[in-house]
Amino acid sequence: MQAYLDNNATSRAAPGVVAAMLPCFTEMFGNPSSTHGLAGDVAKALRTARAQVRDLLGAAAAQEIVFCSGGTEANNTAIHAALEAAGGRDEVITSAVEHAAILAPLAEARRRRGIRLHIIGVDGRGRLDMEAYRAALGPRTALVSFMWANNETGTLFPVPALAAMAKGAGALFHTDAVQAAGKLPIRLVETGIDLLSLSGHKLHGPKGIGALYVRAGSKLAPLLRGGHQERGWRAGTENVPGIVGLGAAAALTEPAAWARMAVLRDRLEAGVLAAISAVRVNGDCANRLPNTCNLAFEDTDGEAVLHGLAQAGIAASSGAACASGVMEPSHVLRAMGVPVRALHGAVRFSLSAETKAAEIEHVLTVLPGIVAAIRARSPFWVGRGAEQEEVRS
Amino acid sequence: MQAYLDNNATSRAAPGVVAAMLPCFTEMFGNPSSTHGLAGDVAKALRTARAQVRDLLGAAAAQEIVFCSGGTEANNTAIHAALEAAGGRDEVITSAVEHAAILAPLAEARRRRGIRLHIIGVDGRGRLDMEAYRAALGPRTALVSFMWANNETGTLFPVPALAAMAKGAGALFHTDAVQAAGKLPIRLVETGIDLLSLSGHKLHGPKGIGALYVRAGSKLAPLLRGGHQERGWRAGTENVPGIVGLGAAAALTEPAAWARMAVLRDRLEAGVLAAISAVRVNGDCANRLPNTCNLAFEDTDGEAVLHGLAQAGIAASSGAACASGVMEPSHVLRAMGVPVRALHGAVRFSLSAETKAAEIEHVLTVLPGIVAAIRARSPFWVGRGAEQEEVRS
Repeated sequence: MQAYLDNNATSRAAPGVVAAMLPCFTEMFGNPSSTHGLAGDVAKALRTARAQVRDLLGAAAAQEIVFCSGGTEANNTAIHAALEAAGGRDEVITSAVEHAAILAPLAEARRRRGIRLHIIGVDGRGRLDMEAYRAALGPRTALVSFMWANNETGTLFPVPALAAMAKGAGALFHTDAVQAAGKLPIRLVETGIDLLSLSGHKLHGPKGIGALYVRAGSKLAPLLRGGHQERGWRAGTENVPGIVGLGAAAALTEPAAWARMAVLRDRLEAGVLAAISAVRVNGDCANRLPNTCNLAFEDTDGEAVLHGLAQAGIAASSGAACASGVMEPSHVLRAMGVPVRALHGAVRFSLSAETKAAEIEHVLTVLPGIVAAIRARSPFWVGRGAEQEEVRS
Repeated sequence: MQAYLDNNATSRAAPGVVAAMLPCFTEMFGNPSSTHGLAGDVAKALRTARAQVRDLLGAAAAQEIVFCSGGTEANNTAIHAALEAAGGRDEVITSAVEHAAILAPLAEARRRRGIRLHIIGVDGRGRLDMEAYRAALGPRTALVSFMWANNETGTLFPVPALAAMAKGAGALFHTDAVQAAGKLPIRLVETGIDLLSLSGHKLHGPKGIGALYVRAGSKLAPLLRGGHQERGWRAGTENVPGIVGLGAAAALTEPAAWARMAVLRDRLEAGVLAAISAVRVNGDCANRLPNTCNLAFEDTDGEAVLHGLAQAGIAASSGAACASGVMEPSHVLRAMGVPVRALHGAVRFSLSAETKAAEIEHVLTVLPGIVAAIRARSPFWVGRGAEQEEVRS
């Protein structure tokens, strides 16, 4: 029995996505910038894909969708573009729980451009400190960038409201929606969001493709320069198969799947909490993606839990990022103030529209034994007393 | 009868390339940064692809290959990285016939960083002005960037020698090898080249993938920041299918095909010159890619010739780039001083390893009639006299 519960890391390309892409490699392979017959069909396929992504995001116009190589490029481009357009404004607001593809380019912008960076904290459930955000906003704010859904905990920020506040201060607003797109309703046309990043492979599209939404009328500068592709927004021959695959993935997204995912995710979480003691749910359970649960097994090592799961054919992920061979606790969980005895034992389960009930049952069958075995070797746990009994029962 | 002679724009993904990629979408789809079982096979596939590209380039180590989204990103990254590492040096040398993916980011660097840009000219055959290059090199030269093969004419620059000169001046040397890679022997280990860009879809790999060669020991800064992928060189989840496809394309490259391409290209060129008068061959015939010929049909409009070819099922390309709806003569041909009556009538034919003799014969059958019909409507040609007789014969 296999179970793939690491969809926030990457998801399987849907069969319909691959089928849509295949002709683009060997038949409809022309360069859309060319003028001969082969290119016409390709240009049409790009138009269809652009409209599919527009519909996924509830954007006003397909021309607001700029295809690029993925979420990281979209985020880097958004930051670069916004800071180039900043005029006299030299401050940026973001949160402590953003992805590295936001925090790293912002740190670089601080070093190179001398911007002032406000990094807003979160509470124990991962909710944004709204007072601190309000206080940081001002006439010098060039850009606000808040993720829509956290990749580790699934916690949702109230992005439309946050965008409205930024617009009130005259700042550009960007959201990293890499985890949110395709997992919750988005209607950009009803928000003040100027820029939004998404990634194909997080929503059953292919790797190597993503998109940046750029609100019509924005006068922003590209990051990659060269040819005039994407109306001058992003140079380089269009990744036609990738774009067509992303469009197909967007079209395959269905709200009904979100409810199914949530049912299975809740079944997993309730089952774990019933069978294993001293488990902490990380994140804001009232405002979470339907597919994510982050569980910290106190007095365990998340990597050891993952190893046990992998032995049982289960793919999940730790909340930790491996940097230079040293396991560091997740910056997201640290920002949330997760207690130290839970910090190292966090495991993220992330479902998808393809997840089956049997996969969840498989996890619930093997996980209690895995956790108990690890805790039996933990001096912290052994010294802890009564709770051990529950695990053995 | 169809003929695809626009391979310098983009080439068909080889069936073996697509076959290698396919499992990466739906079976071997894990994120190589993950720790579970699914990721192990993926990491191995990336190692294989990296070694295949190393072998294509004759590089010393697979770790010198950094995968990215294509030639444009590779070129933009090389320029950014080199200028970040420039120390006190503030001059860059390039040529007048580079691709826009070099000229545009360099123009931007001049605007933003205040670098001094030396743009070296070429002669009537597209050969670099070596005296001007030598004179421009100096202790302030941070970066030299010369293309290996010109995309419009196929003309080769003597890149290993140009690199040696740059190294003698203590400058970094980059080459845009997007058109050269896979079409001529490259042994980077025997050169002083520090950085080299290539693109997958120009050599029967997929679109949306490329690589930047970075000589071991270089201390350079990435352009896209975020995760630690590609040893910190290029953030973003690896485009696994694209990387595997590029590796497969590199492995499928075979020197025997180069000779076959040259025979067919020479047959095309000789046949055209025999059948049509007042045709100019643009480029350095003694030092050219084996697959490219750029022919200017005097007193015609290249777009009209291409339209006639497209009607006959033949895909080729003009030497012109369409900017904002206005056809501008090619900057490459202008830099070569191509006379005005030939400038607008340039057509590029670019073959590939897949090109068949029948495709060339088809072109030779229809092209004389197409050119004659266009010239019959041209007041320049009609006023020209004797040469018309040749075309009618």
